[in-house]
Amino acid sequence: MFQAPRGTRDFTPDEMEKRRYIEKNMTSTFLSFGYGEIQTPTFENIELFTATSGDAILNEIYDFTDKGGRELALRPELTAPVIRCYVERLQMEPKPLKLFYFGNCYRYDRPQKGRYREFRQAGCEVIGVDTTEAIAELLALAFTLLKNIGLKNVHINIGNLTIISAIFKKLNIQKDGQIELPLIDKSQFDDLKVSLQDSGVCEKDAEQFIRILQTSEINMIRLFIADDPDAIQELKIMETVIDLLKNAFHIKEFDIKLSIVRGLDYYKGLVFEIDAPMLGAEKQLCGGGSYDLVTLFGGSGVPTSGFAIGFDRTILALEAEGFIFPTSKLDVFIIPVNQDMLPASIEIAQQLLRLLSSYETKVFLLILICSVVV
Amino acid sequence: MFQAPRGTRDFTPDEMEKRRYIEKNMTSTFLSFGYGEIQTPTFENIELFTATSGDAILNEIYDFTDKGGRELALRPELTAPVIRCYVERLQMEPKPLKLFYFGNCYRYDRPQKGRYREFRQAGCEVIGVDTTEAIAELLALAFTLLKNIGLKNVHINIGNLTIISAIFKKLNIQKDGQIELPLIDKSQFDDLKVSLQDSGVCEKDAEQFIRILQTSEINMIRLFIADDPDAIQELKIMETVIDLLKNAFHIKEFDIKLSIVRGLDYYKGLVFEIDAPMLGAEKQLCGGGSYDLVTLFGGSGVPTSGFAIGFDRTILALEAEGFIFPTSKLDVFIIPVNQDMLPASIEIAQQLLRLLSSYETKVFLLILICSVVV
Repeated sequence: MFQAPRGTRDFTPDEMEKRRYIEKNMTSTFLSFGYGEIQTPTFENIELFTATSGDAILNEIYDFTDKGGRELALRPELTAPVIRCYVERLQMEPKPLKLFYFGNCYRYDRPQKGRYREFRQAGCEVIGVDTTEAIAELLALAFTLLKNIGLKNVHINIGNLTIISAIFKKLNIQKDGQIELPLIDKSQFDDLKVSLQDSGVCEKDAEQFIRILQTSEINMIRLFIADDPDAIQELKIMETVIDLLKNAFHIKEFDIKLSIVRGLDYYKGLVFEIDAPMLGAEKQLCGGGSYDLVTLFGGSGVPTSGFAIGFDRTILALEAEGFIFPTSKLDVFIIPVNQDMLPASIEIAQQLLRLLSSYETKVFLLILICSVVV
Repeated sequence: MFQAPRGTRDFTPDEMEKRRYIEKNMTSTFLSFGYGEIQTPTFENIELFTATSGDAILNEIYDFTDKGGRELALRPELTAPVIRCYVERLQMEPKPLKLFYFGNCYRYDRPQKGRYREFRQAGCEVIGVDTTEAIAELLALAFTLLKNIGLKNVHINIGNLTIISAIFKKLNIQKDGQIELPLIDKSQFDDLKVSLQDSGVCEKDAEQFIRILQTSEINMIRLFIADDPDAIQELKIMETVIDLLKNAFHIKEFDIKLSIVRGLDYYKGLVFEIDAPMLGAEKQLCGGGSYDLVTLFGGSGVPTSGFAIGFDRTILALEAEGFIFPTSKLDVFIIPVNQDMLPASIEIAQQLLRLLSSYETKVFLLILICSVVV
């Protein structure tokens, strides 16, 4: 007997209704924020991903050689393909370019709860603008997407890689934190303290840094980086973004949290994650920020930022909150009382279709065609 | 510079609007016919496709070995995966089971106009019923899907592999037409005549068979197969299907055409194609019919039928007919006259979003926020 490959899934009509609801609802939100949809191929030349994430990614992607000898890979994420498409086809378009997408991604990973080898993401990229209002709008969009689908309890955490770099410099940490960043990303602060002290940071500074990573008090951060004008400037930008979020977008569910550093190498400046606290350890629904891939792919430098939202955890979060997904079943029963009434039954069904062919319509109807005509 | 792999495409927002329009419109039609959506993985165990189509398919699919040694293939079509899912998960569901799907498929083929290595299909399978009204409804659904998206000129051609087999038997053709079927499929009637005569069919019978393949006159077909009760029974079923199409579904754009035999090995009984005549040689938009895969995949025998529609040719056909695709752009411009008006502009935008967040809404609006407040 044949089975779906390990780590992949079939979605039955009940499951697809949930996924289509999310996709439809998110599409409305993206469009209302002035975004246009884009779609890229399921596989790309493998160099696209090694150039972006280093050769280490080869251990966790589906790579293969096609019959023409091309080295290809099923995409592990969507930002690199979308920026590749921008450089190849869209550089002359008016800016800012606001693009959204839905797409399946693939990782050769150990399958576990909420983690699959084929998984769906929603996401977007903003190309050509990095004003504070553009960044605030990006965060507001991510938050609004999750609220509009029906989530009640989500929280934004905002970090900043420029400030983290300034702190690394201040503490004389070598290689810009290549050892420390993964520990920060995973909130492994005990290991981080050991690693910092191995790098020659005194205990007091190490402890202060770890407090800074976990505080949401801007003044405490400001004091620690007071002697670095670039970091102070970046903190001012964050304050403006926060002010816009609060006072223009009326969003209050956020915190500064410098321990948000994202896993990927190409991020820089402001980064953020959105959590559903109800999900516990696997609570992150969304991640994003500013990054630079355009010049790496041979394009002319423009600011870029974006985020991605995973479908699977988002559905788990909705279910954890007891959300009732809307259903779209059209329940009309037309029962011919005998074989002669069959053509008449089909005709009535056809007429009803024309009246009721809407995704939202829910009708309970029972029609008995009696043999009065005969 | 990086490029999309050969034979694949990026879809920009203008192109995606066309594709989403078709998907949304077809979804409404499928749902109104009582179908539920299903989705299967992008890749399957390779044996699924070799069991279905023979080892020859290995020359034209994307196959690869994953890091766990599994031999996988990007799906070249969707019927085998959906029936695999049915056997694995859905056998106990109430029948008839009516499933529809959208999905990308992959063929390692020479790219040419309207043919790509990654291409999108819509389709459906009906499991557990093979009454004449179910078959008529399946044909009506395929036709209605294409009419509802806006196509004016489409035509159904109906063939029957049971009748073709009966003719092969009558003419003493060996191996059930393994040489002849591909020639019939491609309408290469001169080559077919040579091949038939090589198999010992006399010239008169060969010419008559070729006429039968091209006629739409049922009586002419009936005369030719009059001595085969199974074929006569099958012809009666076709007549009932045609009668329902005409008189219950009010569809007149169809012909019997026995040269429709479909390329795939697993079809049997009634098969059909729908053409857009405006597209010339590459005019086939849809193909389907009855088939048997359930027992091949280890399930309990139930009747199955279905069809698939290609997105690319369907879009070409709409464009050839001069169809104007609906656009969904939300054109609202809010221009703050100075930096102080920025938060107020964002607030107005947010208010408008709540009013206008609909896919269909199209608004042209220009709001100038003057500095009266200051």
